Formats: sequence, C-alpha cells, structure tokens
Amino acid sequence: MLIEKYKIAEHNDALMATHRRAFDYIAGEIPQTTEILQRLAAFQVGIPSWALGTGGTRFGRFPGGGEPRSLEEKIEDVGLLHQLNQSSGAISLHIPWDVPSNAAHIKAVAAQHGLRFDAMNSNTFQDQPGQQHSYKFGSLQHVNKAVRKQAVEHNIEVIRHGVELGSEALTVWLSDGSCFPGQLNFRHAFQNTLEGLQEIYAALPDNWKVFVEYKAAEPNFYSTTVGDWGQSLLYANKLGPKAYSLVDLGHHLPNANIEQIVSLLLMEGKLGGFHFNDSKFGDDDLTVGSIKPYQLFLIFNELVDGMDARGMNHNTDLGWMIDASHNVKDPLEDLLQSVEAIMISYAQALLVDRKKLLAAQQDNDVVTAQEILQQAFRTDVRPLVAAARLQAGGALQPLALYRSEKVRANLVQQRGLKTMATGL
Amino acid sequence: MLIEKYKIAEHNDALMATHRRAFDYIAGEIPQTTEILQRLAAFQVGIPSWALGTGGTRFGRFPGGGEPRSLEEKIEDVGLLHQLNQSSGAISLHIPWDVPSNAAHIKAVAAQHGLRFDAMNSNTFQDQPGQQHSYKFGSLQHVNKAVRKQAVEHNIEVIRHGVELGSEALTVWLSDGSCFPGQLNFRHAFQNTLEGLQEIYAALPDNWKVFVEYKAAEPNFYSTTVGDWGQSLLYANKLGPKAYSLVDLGHHLPNANIEQIVSLLLMEGKLGGFHFNDSKFGDDDLTVGSIKPYQLFLIFNELVDGMDARGMNHNTDLGWMIDASHNVKDPLEDLLQSVEAIMISYAQALLVDRKKLLAAQQDNDVVTAQEILQQAFRTDVRPLVAAARLQAGGALQPLALYRSEKVRANLVQQRGLKTMATGL
Amino acid sequence: MLIEKYKIAEHNDALMATHRRAFDYIAGEIPQTTEILQRLAAFQVGIPSWALGTGGTRFGRFPGGGEPRSLEEKIEDVGLLHQLNQSSGAISLHIPWDVPSNAAHIKAVAAQHGLRFDAMNSNTFQDQPGQQHSYKFGSLQHVNKAVRKQAVEHNIEVIRHGVELGSEALTVWLSDGSCFPGQLNFRHAFQNTLEGLQEIYAALPDNWKVFVEYKAAEPNFYSTTVGDWGQSLLYANKLGPKAYSLVDLGHHLPNANIEQIVSLLLMEGKLGGFHFNDSKFGDDDLTVGSIKPYQLFLIFNELVDGMDARGMNHNTDLGWMIDASHNVKDPLEDLLQSVEAIMISYAQALLVDRKKLLAAQQDNDVVTAQEILQQAFRTDVRPLVAAARLQAGGALQPLALYRSEKVRANLVQQRGLKTMATGL
Amino acid sequence: MLIEKYKIAEHNDALMATHRRAFDYIAGEIPQTTEILQRLAAFQVGIPSWALGTGGTRFGRFPGGGEPRSLEEKIEDVGLLHQLNQSSGAISLHIPWDVPSNAAHIKAVAAQHGLRFDAMNSNTFQDQPGQQHSYKFGSLQHVNKAVRKQAVEHNIEVIRHGVELGSEALTVWLSDGSCFPGQLNFRHAFQNTLEGLQEIYAALPDNWKVFVEYKAAEPNFYSTTVGDWGQSLLYANKLGPKAYSLVDLGHHLPNANIEQIVSLLLMEGKLGGFHFNDSKFGDDDLTVGSIKPYQLFLIFNELVDGMDARGMNHNTDLGWMIDASHNVKDPLEDLLQSVEAIMISYAQALLVDRKKLLAAQQDNDVVTAQEILQQAFRTDVRPLVAAARLQAGGALQPLALYRSEKVRANLVQQRGLKTMATGL
Repeated sequence: MLIEKYKIAEHNDALMATHRRAFDYIAGEIPQTTEILQRLAAFQVGIPSWALGTGGTRFGRFPGGGEPRSLEEKIEDVGLLHQLNQSSGAISLHIPWDVPSNAAHIKAVAAQHGLRFDAMNSNTFQDQPGQQHSYKFGSLQHVNKAVRKQAVEHNIEVIRHGVELGSEALTVWLSDGSCFPGQLNFRHAFQNTLEGLQEIYAALPDNWKVFVEYKAAEPNFYSTTVGDWGQSLLYANKLGPKAYSLVDLGHHLPNANIEQIVSLLLMEGKLGGFHFNDSKFGDDDLTVGSIKPYQLFLIFNELVDGMDARGMNHNTDLGWMIDASHNVKDPLEDLLQSVEAIMISYAQALLVDRKKLLAAQQDNDVVTAQEILQQAFRTDVRPLVAAARLQAGGALQPLALYRSEKVRANLVQQRGLKTMATGL
Repeated sequence: MLIEKYKIAEHNDALMATHRRAFDYIAGEIPQTTEILQRLAAFQVGIPSWALGTGGTRFGRFPGGGEPRSLEEKIEDVGLLHQLNQSSGAISLHIPWDVPSNAAHIKAVAAQHGLRFDAMNSNTFQDQPGQQHSYKFGSLQHVNKAVRKQAVEHNIEVIRHGVELGSEALTVWLSDGSCFPGQLNFRHAFQNTLEGLQEIYAALPDNWKVFVEYKAAEPNFYSTTVGDWGQSLLYANKLGPKAYSLVDLGHHLPNANIEQIVSLLLMEGKLGGFHFNDSKFGDDDLTVGSIKPYQLFLIFNELVDGMDARGMNHNTDLGWMIDASHNVKDPLEDLLQSVEAIMISYAQALLVDRKKLLAAQQDNDVVTAQEILQQAFRTDVRPLVAAARLQAGGALQPLALYRSEKVRANLVQQRGLKTMATGL
Repeated sequence: MLIEKYKIAEHNDALMATHRRAFDYIAGEIPQTTEILQRLAAFQVGIPSWALGTGGTRFGRFPGGGEPRSLEEKIEDVGLLHQLNQSSGAISLHIPWDVPSNAAHIKAVAAQHGLRFDAMNSNTFQDQPGQQHSYKFGSLQHVNKAVRKQAVEHNIEVIRHGVELGSEALTVWLSDGSCFPGQLNFRHAFQNTLEGLQEIYAALPDNWKVFVEYKAAEPNFYSTTVGDWGQSLLYANKLGPKAYSLVDLGHHLPNANIEQIVSLLLMEGKLGGFHFNDSKFGDDDLTVGSIKPYQLFLIFNELVDGMDARGMNHNTDLGWMIDASHNVKDPLEDLLQSVEAIMISYAQALLVDRKKLLAAQQDNDVVTAQEILQQAFRTDVRPLVAAARLQAGGALQPLALYRSEKVRANLVQQRGLKTMATGL
Repeated sequence: MLIEKYKIAEHNDALMATHRRAFDYIAGEIPQTTEILQRLAAFQVGIPSWALGTGGTRFGRFPGGGEPRSLEEKIEDVGLLHQLNQSSGAISLHIPWDVPSNAAHIKAVAAQHGLRFDAMNSNTFQDQPGQQHSYKFGSLQHVNKAVRKQAVEHNIEVIRHGVELGSEALTVWLSDGSCFPGQLNFRHAFQNTLEGLQEIYAALPDNWKVFVEYKAAEPNFYSTTVGDWGQSLLYANKLGPKAYSLVDLGHHLPNANIEQIVSLLLMEGKLGGFHFNDSKFGDDDLTVGSIKPYQLFLIFNELVDGMDARGMNHNTDLGWMIDASHNVKDPLEDLLQSVEAIMISYAQALLVDRKKLLAAQQDNDVVTAQEILQQAFRTDVRPLVAAARLQAGGALQPLALYRSEKVRANLVQQRGLKTMATGL
C-alpha cells in the first residue's frame, strides 16, 4: 500500500509551524545548511528484503501480521518506507528467498516505487529442500570439493539474478567455521574458501563488486572462517580490485573499535559495504542507534572523513544497508526508526568542523578534539533531516504518519494475520 | 535400543589389559582410590529430554537422523547412555514437549532403564498452538495480569506432571526481559515476576524445590528480568527455603568468575541446581569441557569444597544436569563426551589435597596453592572414571562401543532419517 | 586561583546573545523549563581529591604541571571548578593522601569556596611507609587477623577525620581478591570481609552511611571479594540500614546492563552512591560521557525514575561523585567536561515524559517507548544547563573561560611544572 | 646464585623412583617418546629481564626482596632458572632498563650461564629522565616529526645494543593510540607509524627480524595504533620479508580465538614471535597456563601443525618468550611455573595424532577430532617433561629444589630486602 499524496501534505501542514521553528533555529546557527540538506537528500539506505517480517531467535519467533507474502509485496513495503522518508530508495535481495522468476516484472514494480536493487545476497548457511549437498559443515570451506562447487555455483546464480535486476554487487556472508577445537584445519578452510571466492570473483561482471562480510561468531561457536576484518581484508586483497570488505556493526568481539576498522579499511581502499544495526551482547540485530548512538556517530565521522580523503561519493561509492531483525516491533516501524537514526548520525558527522578537528589533533589538544565531536553530536539535527525529507516529498514524521494511517492494520487486512515472510 | 550385555563384556575384555595398566599406575600413586571410585559411581548427571535431537541456531538446523519421536524413545536414548556410562541415571523433562499422557507407563519405562526423573522444566518462552495469551512480551513479568496468570498456571501444571512421575524439583527459566531501552520498567518487571514465582512457590509440594535460573541475555537483547546470580538470589531469598538459584555455565557475561559465584551461592545455602555445557562467546551450549576444561575443574573444586563445608550429599543435594545443544554432532555421542568431561572434573576435584590447600592459603603461598590445583588437574584420572564405570556394569569406553555397535545407524533404521525430536 | 567576578560577567555578556537564542528556542518547546532549571541548579557533583592531578597506568605517567601540592590547593582547584560551573560544590577526600592535620582550617578553606565534604575514602589497597602489616594479600579479607584489624582501624580513623570535616559517609573500596585459582577460599574471604565491615559499621556515627563499592577486576586479576552488585548487596544487607551499595560505572564485566542494576538497587533501597566515569575496555576512568553517552542517559533515566518512586531527594539522598583519571588531559578541563556531561544527562532524564513512557510500557508499545527516550536524548539541552549555571553565578562556557583565563599557565607559574599531586 | 651440582643430583636421586614409575608408565603407552624428549630438550623459552622483579598495577606494587640490582644479577637469575629447568636458555633485554654498558662483559656473563640473547625490546611508552621529547601522545604515530625521529633513533640504538650482544631480533611494542574519540586521525597515525617502522626496518642487519607486537588496549583506552593482528599484519606486509607479527596472549579482545590467529599468521609466513602469559580479564600478565591451559594447548597445537606444514624449526624459527608480571608471587617461582606450563603444552601438542586428526577432519567427524585433541591434553605428560630436563642436567622438580635450597632467602641476604628491579 502507498499513502495518498494529499495525506502526506496534510500531515506536513499540521506539523509545519513546529518544524519551521526548529529548522529556523538550527539553520541560523550553522553555516552549511544548504549543503547538508543536499547531502542528506542524496543519501539512500538499502532495505534488506528479509527484514520485512518478524525475526526471531533459536528460542522462537512471535510473528505479527500482514507480512509480505511475495517479492512484489516486499518491494511494496520498501516502497512505502521510501515514500515516507525518501531515504530508503534501494532494496537488497536474498537468494533463494527472493528469486525473481520474472525479472522484468520485478524491475518494473521496483521502478514504480523509485527503488533500485542494492547488493544481492547469497545463502550457503542453510540447506534448501532438494539441495544435493548439505552445508552442515560449511560451504566454501568444505572438505568435499563437490560441496564447494555447489556453493560457488549458487553464488554465480545469484550474480545472474542480480544482473537481470540491475544490481551491481554481491555480498557473500559465509557462516563457515567450526563449533569445536579440532573440527577444522584453519589453513585448509581458509584456502578452500579463498579458492571458492576466486571462482565467484571470476564470474563477476566488469562493473560488479563483491563484498566479503566477516563475523566473529554464530552460527559457529568456536571459529569463523571469515571472522574479523583482518581475515576479510586478506581475502579481499588476494581476490583483486573488485573485492571489498563489508562491515556489519554486530559482527565484532566485545569492545571492538569499529570506527577505527572503518577508517583503516577506507585507507586501504577496501571498504565496500556496510550493514547497520545495533547490539548490546552479540549479533543482536537491534534497531540502528538504539543502544550505542555515539558509536554510530563516530563511525559516520570516520566514513565521511575517510571517503572525503579519497574523493569518494558519499552515496554511491559504498553499499549502505540495514541488516536488522525485528523480534518485538512492527518491522516497518523498526526500519523507519533505523533509517532516521542513520540520517541523524550522518547529519551530525557532516556538522563536524574538520579543519578545527585536524588543528586540535595537530596540537594534541585532546579536550578540544572531544569538544568538536560532542558539539556535533549534541546538536539536535532532526530538523535538518526532516527538512531534507520534506524537500524530497516525504513526511515530516514518517513514523507518526505510518501510525495515523493505520498501515499495519491495513496490511493485516490485505495479507492476513498469519502470513510469515521468508527470512530469519 | 540397548546393547546386549555380552557385547559390553566383550568390549571390556578387549580393553582390559590397557585399562589395568593405567589403573594400576594411578591407583598406586594416590591413596584415596576406593573412596573416589565410590563417589564417582554414585554421581549421576541428568540428561535433558530436549538434548536428544539435533539443535540449531536462528540461522538453521541440520538434523541428523534417528531422533526420538516420542517421550518413550527419549527415555530409551537416555537409558542407552546410562547403560554405557552408568552415570546418566536421570532424565529431565520439558513441558509441553514431553507431556506424559500416561504417567504410570512412562514411569515404568524409565524404571526399566534405571532412570529417575530429575527437575521438571516449564516453557513460557514460546507460544504453543492454541495458547490464549502470547509470551511475546514476557510471561511472569508481563504487564497484563492474564498473561502472568497463564504462565503461573502452566508452571503449576508442570509441577503436577512432575509429581506423577516422582520428580521433586521445578526449574523455572524465564526468557523475560526486553530488547530495547524503555521497553520495560525494570522494577515493575521484577515485582510482577516475584509475585508469579510466589504463586508457583505456593503450589510446590513439601518435598519439592524450585530452581530460579538466570541468564545474561538472549532471547532478549537488552535486559533480562532474571539476569544474573544477584537477581536470582534476590528472588530465591524473597521466595523462601524451597527456592534456590540454578547456575547454567553459559549464562554469564564475558569473563565472569563462575566458580566464585558457585562458592558464594553455596555459602548462602542457595545453590540448587546446575546446568553443564561450555561456550566461547555466549550461550553456545557446546559439549561440556570442550572449550574451558580448567574452568570446569575449578567449578567442581568449589562444589566439592562448598558442599563438604555444609555436609551436603554430593549426589543428591544439588540437581546436576547437562544443558547443551548439538548442532554438528550426533547428540548421543555429544552427551557421552559431556558426561565423561563431568566425571573427569569431578574426579580431579576429589583429588585436591584440601588440607594442604587450606594451609597454603593460610600462608598466602599462592604458588603452592596453584600447584595443588594443577597437580589434581594434570593427573590423568580417566582410568578412575573408567574403573568406576566398569564396577557399575558400564563400558570402559562408552563412545567406542557406541560406534562399534553402530547405534546411530540402527536408530536411523528404526526411526527413520527425517525424524526431528521436539526441542530447540 | 579564582577568576575575578567581572571576568565571568564579561564572558557571559559576550556569549549572551547566542545563549539567549538557544535558550529561548528550547524553552519555547518544553513546558517544564522552570522546574528543570531549579533541579539542575540544586544538583551538585562531588570532585575526588585524587583526580586533580595527572593519572597514569602501570606503564607510566606523563604529568602536566601546576598540580596541587597540598590539600588546601586541592580544595582551591575544586573551588575554581565550582566557581565556573556552580555544580561541583563538594570534595571527596582520600585518606591517607589528604589527612586534614588542621581540620578547622581545612573546613574554613572549603567554606570559602562554598564546598562541603562528600564521602570519605579509605585506602587499604596500598602500603604506606611505616605501616605494620602489608596489604599485599588483601586487607579485610586477609587470613591474618592482625592485618584485618589494621584495616578496620584505618577505616575508623577515616571516619574520625570525616566527622571533623562534616562528611557523613564512608566509601569502602576494597581491592581484596586473588590473582590465581586456589589463592583464596572465597567463603573465608567473604566472611572475613563481612566481619571487618561490621566492625567499621559499628563505628559509624548515627547520621553516617557506609558505601560498599564493588569492582569486577583489577588490581586482582582472578577474583574480587566485592566483585559485583550481587556481592555488594549481600554485604549491605547483612550490615544493616546504614550500609549501601556504590556503583562505579567502570567496575563491570563487558556488556553489563548498569541501568538495570541501578534500578534494582534503588528498588531494594540499597543504592547509596555513584562514581561517574566512562570506559571502553575496563576500568578506564575516562571522562564522563566521552564513550557511551546514551548509557549515561539511560542510567540517569533510572536514577530519576527510581528516586522519584521512593520520594527521594535527587541531590541529597545519593552520593554523586566523579571518579576518573586524566592521563592525556588537563585534569581540571577533564573535570569540567565530566560535570557538563553529567548535567546534560540529568537534564535529558528530567525531560523524559514518564507518563507517556509508562503508558507505552503498559501497551507493550516498544517503538513508542524508544521514541520517548530518544526524544529526550536527542534534544539539545545544553542551553538549559548553561542557563542554570548562569542563574547561579557561573560561566556560560566554563571550559572556554578556563582557557581564555589561562588558568593552567597560572597554576604552573604558582606551583611549578614538576609538582605531582598525590593520587593514582 | 647457582645451585651446586651435587645438590641437583641429590634432589633427583630422592625423586627417582617415583619419576621412574611415572615415566615408565607413559613411555609404555606412547610410541614416539624418544623424539618427544629430543624436541622438549631443544625447546628454549626466553625470559624477559623485566619479569625478574615484582610487578604491580596502577594501584600499587608490593615488592618482595632480593630483586636483581643490575643486568648481571638479572642474567644470574635467568641462569639459575635455566640451571633448574634447562629450558630457559635465553634472556630478552629491554632498553633503557638494561643498557649493556660493557657488552663484552655482559656477553661473557651470559655465556657462563649458557644463555643467549633473545629479541631486544625498545621502550617508547615511557619518558626517560633527560629525554628531549615526551611520548605522552605517542611515539611513532606522533603528529610531531621530531618525536617520531627520537623514537626511531631509540629503536636503532636498541638494534645496535642487540648486535653487540648477538641478538638477532627487535620487538617493537608501541603503546601508541588514543584515549578519546577525536584525539587521533587513525589514518595519519597509521601512516606515521608505518614510516617510522620503515626507517627502523632499514636499519636492521641482514640476519635480523623485527616483530610488530599488537595490543587491543592499555595504556591507551580508546584506540591502539597497532591494535590487532590485522593491523600488525598490514604493517608487516608493507615493511617487507624481515618483518613479522608478534602474538602476546593477553593482547586480545574478550573471546578472541587466538589459535586461529596463530594459524593464519603462520599460513601467511608472518608469525615471528610469541609472548606467553595468561589472563582472565585483560592484559593481566598472569602465570602461563594458570587460567586457560586448554587454550594454551590449542595454540601449541596450531604452532606445531603450522610450523611443520612450513618445515620450520620448532626451536629457532619463532621467538618464544614469557611476558608476565608477578604481583603476588616470587618472580622466579612464577617463571618456573610458567616454563613448566609451556613445556607441558608443547609436549601435549607433540602427542596429537595428526594423521588421525586430518582423517577425522576430512570425514567431518567432529566427535573424533575432539577426542584426539582431548586424548593428548588429558594425558599426564609431566614425566616426559621431567625426563627431558633430567637428561639435560636439570632438576626433576625445579620448584621444589628452588624452595628446599631457600634461594629467595639467599637472594634477600645477598641483595637486600628493599631492592627493586627495573621494569614495570
């Protein structure tokens, strides 16, 4: 479902006086308002197709209702988000959950909603019905060449689907690893995985990238064959110029300094993509910015700084995506909150006075350096984010409009209460 | 299936010479062999009914075959383990996965295998088909009194089943908590939970105990309403003398000193039960002793020391149970390995020279204190464990016999390849 | 040194127009401005005497200059902070670093600066020259009764000093614990410690409190005898109504939910004091709010909520104190940043719409609950904090004035470059 | 002091019967005894000169007595250890704590004790009296080129000292990093550090190696410029073939899989050195094997496997060293315990049946793979270690002989009670 345009207009009108006061105040205090609004408007975050339904844990899943029953409905859901916040203009598909049997049709549906196809995601961490070989003991790392071959071919098939849809990147997340000491020969697992990635790499179209995602643990609980940024970078360097690391915020050991990792990967020209979420304990896949918003800001601070240092385009040179799970929230509401948190952090990072920061660093003036970052973070940038959204035709308060329009109730009515979207 | 007695005898005969050499050597070096063998023979570890099938994570599950299709078959599986190692003489049931529709029959089946019924386990972390209220937002903590009432009644029903089977304890593990800041009022959640536990407590038969299990995180990812031993002890103290804390090795924050927690709970007279497993990252539910065997020994060292200080019976005064998940191993093999690791650690703890240890502590002789513990841990006690098993009629090498008898293949033949046991 | 009043006035005048714009905007948006300003003005954070010099690690210490050479100079430094921010109206002394040989004189110096004496701190984690017994193997836990007695007497002496100065609380932080398995009998260590605390408790004047501080690790690296809130609460409950737990933000295991601990201790009527700082890895003692400002806000959210639920006075019923170390910053600048971060978090917590929050919780409306907290946190409350400071006679921008007045340079001139304050 | 040879002989004689029983038993069970004894005898662990005195934390230091007062006395202490265990045949010096003013003399003293000089260690994490530039804000990463130059020159001076002594490696541990967000530009810090390392690299003699040590945190508490193996490997690869990573067991984030890191660094041909210690919380620098002995075994398992795969010499191709701190133990006793733990783990790793392990891995037989490792780990290999020591002329029980000879009391008498060795 989409919301009729006049309703968005009514919503905005009702909130305009308050917004105007807030915007005028902040715009009067900062010089670069226009540039920031442009940058915010250009910034688009990909929505993963598997995050449109209720998630769960190994202990269970408590589905809501009105979940999308088809790829078309998933695209519609993302379209609705994008209509509301004008910042979700891409969808990231997962094969085999979202096989586009009629690619032309699917492309047309996406185009109607102004969406493009972000990185394609393969799946070798689950067995599919009818699959010849099991991934119980890994996919690309597997001791059996036939299993590795199957996994390689699956990835190549994913690329084929992606080409049809106009995607230009493949994200490879391998759950390969081991649960017990002795289970794996780490070196053999690495070498097998590298060979498999090389075969996939060889199948990439010229304009494609491959993102090698890393993760410290889960579903394997002793070792992971692409376990940290060091391993991911090793693979990416051995693969070649089209291979990059992908950082998922939840995939690190406790206390890791993710912003430094981001900075170094950018320095090496090897940061390719980003999965946003938040966490307290592990790969909790919580709403972006809900637990450690300052860390999110610090990461964006490095992203902006590092991309500018390389002359990269903020919007197109990295793959931005949410990767979250929604166990106790309406998935669409959760995603609206996540996108908002991302836009706020990005806006704050744009506010950082980099000249002054560099000067403070050169003086070892730690106090001032901290003040500069905190000055940006403590600024209430929500009016800027709202203004950018407003200019682009979105709603001043997407979540409020989503609720007042009773979107979920409508979806339940259309799709039923017991639907369950494919995904985790 | 059971293994014919003569096959056990043959197995033992074939290994006897090697065993005898090993046993004679160790028995010649330590004075208290007879007492240790008696204690080892008496020590029984409960097997959870839900650990007899293949486990999994939110990312998937790769079932093996021959998994038990009924409560009877679960009891048979535990009976087989017990036949092999003579140390698994109890089964712990989970309601509603194991409702004993005919309790007398179930008791008889268990008796045939020499098994008793360990603590009963309730389940308010999942919704069952047809259930009136959902536990999506908790059970005993729930803001809605009707949900709390439903959870209380379920626990009372579990007690009823347990009474019929001769169990004498209820383990309450609540997944109650929250995923996001603000979701819960921590105090209200605590108070609601306490009230619910009080109603359950009131329904306990005189000879029953209730174990309040705690867990730091998962399936909730921000707060847990019974999150650590401090909270568990608060509940147990407020409930009364039949309420105890239950320690699950995997339910702690990183780096927690679990052996100290065990010691203090024993000091307070409030340690009731124990869930054995191992982990590297979180609640990984790996084979006992597979990752941190020295920690397991240190825990047993405190258990023995603390129980002896209170004159407790090692075997009957605490509830010993495995709580593990088997994602990449045959569940029965995994359980054999777990029980073996427990027996080894217990034997090592019995070897500790406590008089010398106390003397070293009194002298602040840290070096000697460490030597005493390491002396016990570095001793190869496997011949003692095997000898105790042998005396009781078990197999010298349970795992080897399990394999040579092709138990799993037989179970697959009997039960089929696609069976999937209830459980996680 | 103090800053002449006219200079503060000049400073404020120069910034007034900008401040006025900011304040008018925010005051126009929130209804309870007056009450918030009153609460902010009343809120005072104690400054520890040992945090006025440069800190260090076991790897070294890089002192700045102009550090206070005496207790009088420490009081002067706190007086200056208080003059600037009007929120640092208390000093917390540490014995034996700050023995007030002439208590009347010291009280007079403090009174000149408008300072009161916060909780007194004892030290049994270091040996002092000429001390009879060593604390190498602990103090109150020690196996030797004579050592325990010495530690008890030291604490009683600290109380005596405190009484002379008008303090009303004793903070006991014990570094007691062990570095190796076997070193300690955990139960004996607990019992010894409890007995020692009981003797100290018996010496408390009627109007005094004792705060039992806990810490997970360091300087002991295997176990700590008051290691977590559960242990601290056990001691406090066994001691009696004048005993409370003290929470130091850096003293927890990784990923601990400190705000929940705060809530539960308040629920139990046993939260007594608070040590503010921030950290990424361990007890890093970094500037408050510099790493996890949202966590700080969530803690204040629980503090306000829990204190209001018990009708407690925000300012006087808990002991608020900074406990930080300044390895790379000017200590006074660091403390100004810390107090600012505390006031901001407190103001944000006061902004939380508790009625709406409770309603959202009652509805299990997790999305709205999060929005309510984020609405408060994302609001730029700095103008409120500045306005409260302004009303009380402080500076609009304490740090900027401190710098423009070249305070550190003046202190170096007065006190020398090579001075080194007592402390860590 | 040294122990007279006849006393060692008397000690060994008295224990011989017991040792013989133990050795005969184990030698009868395992086939490769002779080869293992040879390998154990060849294996030598370097002792760091700074670990011969009592260590401490930022909270204090409780010295023992009889600590070495000079480099000669340090060498004597290591000589004594080596005399006892015949496995400590190297000493690792730290400049400026151990400047060999007369290198020829120092070499002669070492030769008398049968010691060689292991890797040299530089120090740019502390300021020395009279030093021109401070390392408060880092050394090789410093924004000021003059500071970087000073640090480079210091390292080159360390190489010069090492050349005189016959050392062939330089260990560079940089504490460079930052305590607060914003303090550093991560990329600039990396580039500056790389340039400095390149200048040091250029000064390496042909037969030298440089080890780039990494550490997650401390003394900096927000970021570290050589923070993990990924960063260390980046530097080592950019430097060239003489540069390697050095792994210190205590320098990782919680739950890191160190054995996998070891395996991958060996695979890349970039593992150069090893610092042994143990820890529970952070860089606790506890006695090797005192907390996680199974992890130590798993690491040795990878070391043996990875070195054999490359045809490396176990004893000479990697730099083995202890890096521990002794806060509550006699340093020499602590070191004897550490070396013993290392030898035990090495012996266990040599026992692993690698052919069977590989076969189990090829079959995805996780249970058997675990059994193979546990079989080695559960074997009591102490008689093998003792036998190797005996053959080489050492004591069957070094610690017992050290005690019965009252070595510490003698050292106190010779050197005094208040001596304090240079070091941490």
